[in-house]
Amino acid sequence: MKLSHVIESQQFTVPLIHELFARARQMEATVRHGGTRDYERRIMATLFYGSSTRTRFSFEAAMQRLGGRVLSTESAQDFSSEIPGEHLEDTIRIIGGMCDLIVLRSRERDGAKRAAAISPVPVINAGDGEGGQHPTQALLDLYTIQQECRTVNGLTVVFMGALDAGRTVRSLAYLLGKVERNRLIFVAPPEVQIAKDILRYLDDHGVRYELTSDPAKVLPQADVVYQTRIDPDRLRSLDVKPAAYNLDLETLARLKPSSVLLHPLPRSVEIDPAVDQDPRAAYFRQARNGLFVRMALLTMLLEP
Amino acid sequence: MKLSHVIESQQFTVPLIHELFARARQMEATVRHGGTRDYERRIMATLFYGSSTRTRFSFEAAMQRLGGRVLSTESAQDFSSEIPGEHLEDTIRIIGGMCDLIVLRSRERDGAKRAAAISPVPVINAGDGEGGQHPTQALLDLYTIQQECRTVNGLTVVFMGALDAGRTVRSLAYLLGKVERNRLIFVAPPEVQIAKDILRYLDDHGVRYELTSDPAKVLPQADVVYQTRIDPDRLRSLDVKPAAYNLDLETLARLKPSSVLLHPLPRSVEIDPAVDQDPRAAYFRQARNGLFVRMALLTMLLEP
Amino acid sequence: MKLSHVIESQQFTVPLIHELFARARQMEATVRHGGTRDYERRIMATLFYGSSTRTRFSFEAAMQRLGGRVLSTESAQDFSSEIPGEHLEDTIRIIGGMCDLIVLRSRERDGAKRAAAISPVPVINAGDGEGGQHPTQALLDLYTIQQECRTVNGLTVVFMGALDAGRTVRSLAYLLGKVERNRLIFVAPPEVQIAKDILRYLDDHGVRYELTSDPAKVLPQADVVYQTRIDPDRLRSLDVKPAAYNLDLETLARLKPSSVLLHPLPRSVEIDPAVDQDPRAAYFRQARNGLFVRMALLTMLLEP
Repeated sequence: MKLSHVIESQQFTVPLIHELFARARQMEATVRHGGTRDYERRIMATLFYGSSTRTRFSFEAAMQRLGGRVLSTESAQDFSSEIPGEHLEDTIRIIGGMCDLIVLRSRERDGAKRAAAISPVPVINAGDGEGGQHPTQALLDLYTIQQECRTVNGLTVVFMGALDAGRTVRSLAYLLGKVERNRLIFVAPPEVQIAKDILRYLDDHGVRYELTSDPAKVLPQADVVYQTRIDPDRLRSLDVKPAAYNLDLETLARLKPSSVLLHPLPRSVEIDPAVDQDPRAAYFRQARNGLFVRMALLTMLLEP
Repeated sequence: MKLSHVIESQQFTVPLIHELFARARQMEATVRHGGTRDYERRIMATLFYGSSTRTRFSFEAAMQRLGGRVLSTESAQDFSSEIPGEHLEDTIRIIGGMCDLIVLRSRERDGAKRAAAISPVPVINAGDGEGGQHPTQALLDLYTIQQECRTVNGLTVVFMGALDAGRTVRSLAYLLGKVERNRLIFVAPPEVQIAKDILRYLDDHGVRYELTSDPAKVLPQADVVYQTRIDPDRLRSLDVKPAAYNLDLETLARLKPSSVLLHPLPRSVEIDPAVDQDPRAAYFRQARNGLFVRMALLTMLLEP
Repeated sequence: MKLSHVIESQQFTVPLIHELFARARQMEATVRHGGTRDYERRIMATLFYGSSTRTRFSFEAAMQRLGGRVLSTESAQDFSSEIPGEHLEDTIRIIGGMCDLIVLRSRERDGAKRAAAISPVPVINAGDGEGGQHPTQALLDLYTIQQECRTVNGLTVVFMGALDAGRTVRSLAYLLGKVERNRLIFVAPPEVQIAKDILRYLDDHGVRYELTSDPAKVLPQADVVYQTRIDPDRLRSLDVKPAAYNLDLETLARLKPSSVLLHPLPRSVEIDPAVDQDPRAAYFRQARNGLFVRMALLTMLLEP
């Protein structure tokens, strides 16, 4: 299967997800053996409006492990000293004439979709504006669940944190709605609960879910805990004790021995570093899986 | 012919221009076939004081399509956290000791010339300060005229916009003064007309030119329309309707079917996106030609 | 000998220094012959909190001359748009999962040491906070002394400038305390003299040293003059004539014909450009030696 662009989680069918994961596993082996030079004549451009060195490096390392080249910009908002607000479409047309693939982090919600509509080369959405998507993050999250739990079906997945803002939660919920028989539990103070449009999507796809503000009740059932960023000041302004939604050694004691802790990183205060040593803490393995999943996506987009 | 540095349009003789264009055409074929690895051990450094991702990417893609490596800085003005105003000469001597070629966008008018005077490696001027030059842009502009019109002689070239500030207009006018029997028409409100020193240069070289503030009269004669950036606020402050110097579907109707529309990009409001679909709109092909012309220049500077 | 990390000058034993210098000399030959491709499957990440294009380019050129790849960030302080103060440890764990080596310029004094403690890949300290170290600079300084004087023993080395702030002076003094029978002279106004902890270190290692505020007396004895940056405003605020500690043609006349002038660069006003032409001015050769020493260090850290 060949991909044209990677814009949103919804575009990934179950067979496409399985092919992607098979390729990602091959990429783990490829990296162990020192990478390939198969793509040494291909050029990827990273256009980041809004810095995210972690995501940018993950894409750039993926392309380089495949032997490819990179054009890189850390701060595309300073794209030109001449025209402050250049049209995204013009930029994409011009950059697309120089390279074989564009990785775009846009500040506009539909940036990646607009870019893909006119780009002469494949576009990957590396995260678009607030309320938007971050599909490669969701794919690596799901791949990590597959690698850690040996399945992506029949799981109880607990999402915890400030869920209304989380681009990664949205994108992963879409994917989990595709694969079968999972149960999603959203744990957050009511003021920052998951957005209605996601719940509608889950309803439409017959996915079981629950909403609660009480972590204690649901954490013992979790196969996967997906912890997201919490802005402590924001929770405090809602009169919520931020620590109530944090992971620490005490919370850990309540979890099943087989459960898996994920976090999209970077973390703020919501996971105590003491948790890192626990074998269930999978978030650094999760970050590393980004390399393999992105390599797999690049091969699907670039292969002739 | 081997080049030492690329500093200003005036240094390009007609035979040199023809060799460059022949190489650029070869490079189009090279890129179609996936690039080369001929320069895989050569390193190019891009030193940009003042961001221009478009120009930087064009040089970096050119070097990479040749197999070469890149050292890149988006914002050389933050070169050092220690010395705010390091001497350009010191920087060039040091960077020149690490790489095989320097691409410099300076904020100082004579930056590239000063750099070339002491650099241990070739220097390319990627645009220097206000009133300065941008010779690789002029070369790709002229190459585009050659590719679109199948000649660079005997043409009527209309420059339109705020012509006093345009570095690209200056550099292209110098080049057009070299090749034969062209007629240049500069269309702008008198307050922002082309600078006197360019007109003196054209007089000295026996080039025919006209100045006018009325687009309607001259556009129907144009073989090439070179539209440049217009700052609408500036025109308004001069009591000029900015739209009078814009290209839109209405203006387009007045042009010859064989005419060619160029713009150095990025554009602001001066070309209506509706124009993009017209086959005469050559500005995205023009941007792409930058890749081939820069590859050609790199081979002329780097080959042993 | 294999290195694990490069954190501080103190870790370099005399045999390790000699092996490094032997490798650096090989690297000079390697670069003359166009570099190698031995490390073409290895990736180095440069994480710079605080810009220093010169040092970053030197590392990146070193890696590329070895055939390797680079992930690059000019301004890691803007690492994430989401979490302003991400933990260094988390960053290093994540980036270390993508690459084979990390070059870190930290703003925190113990940044490199903390990074090395948890990094899955080798870490090189490319300069840490005020009062910290810059060991690769010290190694290239010592290598330059070796190349220029044909020895690193039995020399009179004069350090001149504002010595209290100089990270490079600290790091080089540590190294010179390791090799034998050198005599160090620190020339500075008392208010900005070398810090006490360095003198204690020299005492402990039986290194002869002198402190003075009078350049005229000691410059004629110097085999090596290591001039460092002077902030003229700061000296003026101490009622000291900054020019008293500068190098110009007049000072030069007092030096031995065989003496060697070093400066870590960039310079401000403290070396008159007229001095550059003198064969004793070795600071641009010194900067270039950074390439060979860093290539040598990379091979020692990366070889299997």
